[in-house]
Amino acid sequence: MNPVRTIQQKRDGERLTHEDIAVFLNGYVGGEIPDYQMAALAMAIYFQGMDPEETAALTEAMLRSGDVLARTSSAAPRVGKHSTGGVGDKVSLVLAPLLACCGLAVPKLSGRGLGPTGGTLDKLEAIPGFRTNLSAEEIARQVDEVGCVITGQTADLVPADRKLYALRDVTGTVPSVPLITASVMSKKLAENLDALVLDVKWGSGASMKQQDDARRLARSMLDVAQRASLPATALVTDMNQPLGRMVGTAVEVQESLATLAGQGPEDLVELTLALGAELLVMAARSSGAEAGGFGHARLPALDEARATLRRQLDSGRALEKFRQMVLAQGGDPDSPLELAPATEIVAVRGGFVASIDCEAIGYAVIALGGGRQKLGETIDPSVGLEVHVRLGQPVSAGERVATLFARPRGLDVAKSLVRQAILIGNQPPPPSPLIVERLP
Amino acid sequence: MNPVRTIQQKRDGERLTHEDIAVFLNGYVGGEIPDYQMAALAMAIYFQGMDPEETAALTEAMLRSGDVLARTSSAAPRVGKHSTGGVGDKVSLVLAPLLACCGLAVPKLSGRGLGPTGGTLDKLEAIPGFRTNLSAEEIARQVDEVGCVITGQTADLVPADRKLYALRDVTGTVPSVPLITASVMSKKLAENLDALVLDVKWGSGASMKQQDDARRLARSMLDVAQRASLPATALVTDMNQPLGRMVGTAVEVQESLATLAGQGPEDLVELTLALGAELLVMAARSSGAEAGGFGHARLPALDEARATLRRQLDSGRALEKFRQMVLAQGGDPDSPLELAPATEIVAVRGGFVASIDCEAIGYAVIALGGGRQKLGETIDPSVGLEVHVRLGQPVSAGERVATLFARPRGLDVAKSLVRQAILIGNQPPPPSPLIVERLP
Repeated sequence: MNPVRTIQQKRDGERLTHEDIAVFLNGYVGGEIPDYQMAALAMAIYFQGMDPEETAALTEAMLRSGDVLARTSSAAPRVGKHSTGGVGDKVSLVLAPLLACCGLAVPKLSGRGLGPTGGTLDKLEAIPGFRTNLSAEEIARQVDEVGCVITGQTADLVPADRKLYALRDVTGTVPSVPLITASVMSKKLAENLDALVLDVKWGSGASMKQQDDARRLARSMLDVAQRASLPATALVTDMNQPLGRMVGTAVEVQESLATLAGQGPEDLVELTLALGAELLVMAARSSGAEAGGFGHARLPALDEARATLRRQLDSGRALEKFRQMVLAQGGDPDSPLELAPATEIVAVRGGFVASIDCEAIGYAVIALGGGRQKLGETIDPSVGLEVHVRLGQPVSAGERVATLFARPRGLDVAKSLVRQAILIGNQPPPPSPLIVERLP
Repeated sequence: MNPVRTIQQKRDGERLTHEDIAVFLNGYVGGEIPDYQMAALAMAIYFQGMDPEETAALTEAMLRSGDVLARTSSAAPRVGKHSTGGVGDKVSLVLAPLLACCGLAVPKLSGRGLGPTGGTLDKLEAIPGFRTNLSAEEIARQVDEVGCVITGQTADLVPADRKLYALRDVTGTVPSVPLITASVMSKKLAENLDALVLDVKWGSGASMKQQDDARRLARSMLDVAQRASLPATALVTDMNQPLGRMVGTAVEVQESLATLAGQGPEDLVELTLALGAELLVMAARSSGAEAGGFGHARLPALDEARATLRRQLDSGRALEKFRQMVLAQGGDPDSPLELAPATEIVAVRGGFVASIDCEAIGYAVIALGGGRQKLGETIDPSVGLEVHVRLGQPVSAGERVATLFARPRGLDVAKSLVRQAILIGNQPPPPSPLIVERLP
């Protein structure tokens, strides 16, 4: 294989073969193909795209660059959720223990925040002692003993993605549907799942600014799942305002705890239940196909599954499962989460909340020290913010629209960002549903 | 400046500012911007192009990465010619001494062959002792004493181009009009010229396979020349058959010597005179604008200039000037040029020469060891080939169409390539003029 020829073929819009893709990717991971050739290929992929077969081949090559999580002796169906990332998206913290309460196994590998969207690992690390670097053996044991785990990708899982993602980040090749698909799906396939639900976000706080692009990405990921025989559905969801009210790390843990106790904000609860219900139904179907399991049980409908999940929140069982998970991962579930002093932001005029620039909200949190702009920056868990208003809501001049939890560092920048992010207009915007579409 | 932001802007089709371009290029040359970011930017430029201002800014930044050749005390106008490369293109070997005979200074920096088109330096090095690594001081002295020099780019001239070209070569980003323009024009501007003529080739042996692309490239290079106040014209010329009959190194020197002695093949003579006439006319105009020089002389017309050049070939003065140049650069003009044994290729059927795949002809020479596929490969000057037929010419079955000068190495491959390259059909192809167009 001549790597230049492969780059030229993609550049000229030709299809790459399964073998071309595997050899190039393996060469890159093995160090024979240098970063600059991978960067050129990634940019050519950005412009020319990849068809479903090429995307599946890239995903498979990335998956095969490392190990997959081992199945354990447990008969519980293994399920996973992936979100393409949003501001205030703390669904994983609620959903993993919630599903474990329902008898599912949730071996969740999460990431850190980079840029305006936060990372699940950073949020959990706001809990003193919480470990996110479990080994494959620790993950397997916790899945069996607790039912859920949320931890970082181990070094042996999909090393190709770690290397390629770091390169894409510095070469302007992040927003490419096939590259995002391969990155996400290789990691989800490495979780060795029986069912997967995808939360593909669009809007001011999402990587996909247009609904159509989110739909294209969802279709691309579902196609790879289908080729890998992994049952999967996707929800295309709105990210034009923060999910819930809290944005940060400790504040998002607090909001997750409230949600696990049945006291969550409406949008967060709705999305969590919708995603969870998809997995309950798919898991029942997958178990039904096997000997044993839920073999003879009737398949639950989505609304029954939602009701089941709702009961786990209201009964306190989901919260108790979260506490078990925290304990199992070395955290102290009773340790108070300290917050920085509060500063209020008020509306400068009356009207309706016309738009919320979620990216600016994310950058405000970064300015406060609660997120990172570059890999490796440390995060202050005590800072963050609460957005008190929702799109279309009427507000009066002087009414509180947001609270910053802030140290002096970056406070002025964050204030200015939040003030500009929340736009008050004369008319409410047209209503936009939280869950736009369910695929396939 | 954030290099990722610059890459993203170009990727998204935004204009880069003069400063963005200069800072990125300088960062790349200085080593602060790594190869992978330059590769990503080059691929984004391949897809999104650059407008004339951006292209001029890139050219200027590359030019300023190093020194320029010093002007000497000589009042002779400094002229240059650049060809975008073709099979059998030995014009530089004839034109440089020819122009020097007419009182012009020709400080020509040439390159080596890579891929199917040969390099002027490789051809000259077929002459025993010929040096192509002159210093800037040696170049200046020889321009004053002989009037012409053909040598390699010195290390201090346009270092950015050396680094960037090597990267483009391995990242599939060679065929980009703005990148080619900046590469060529930065080197031509570094020759510190009073007039430039461009030979922009299209066809099976050229990098531009379509006439329109060659025209676009010519316009782009002329635009940069104009912005740099360098008088320039361009000829768009046909490269669908070798220029002259000889392809290789020593064989091309032999054909150049014959041409310098007034015995050259018609197409090579025609193109050499046409390019030379452009420079004579532009040089007279540029001198006329200065005090002294040809100040009061009437500007020659192109046909008069051609006649002047023709006389230098027929009188033997051009050949004598070539011998002076060879001697000045350490070569032995009387040393015989040894050729490898001849092998004839005959037509397998009768008809008309319908097409000649010049790229395949070039690869045949590489197979024989007379060219290089990778930088650094050594060249056997004794091998090469002669194409006896021209497009549209009638041939009989069994008639000789080519002669290979070959060692056993690669002979079978070369034979096969040449046989397939020269296509005999039932009809002659439509006639195609050697000089398609003159720009601007």
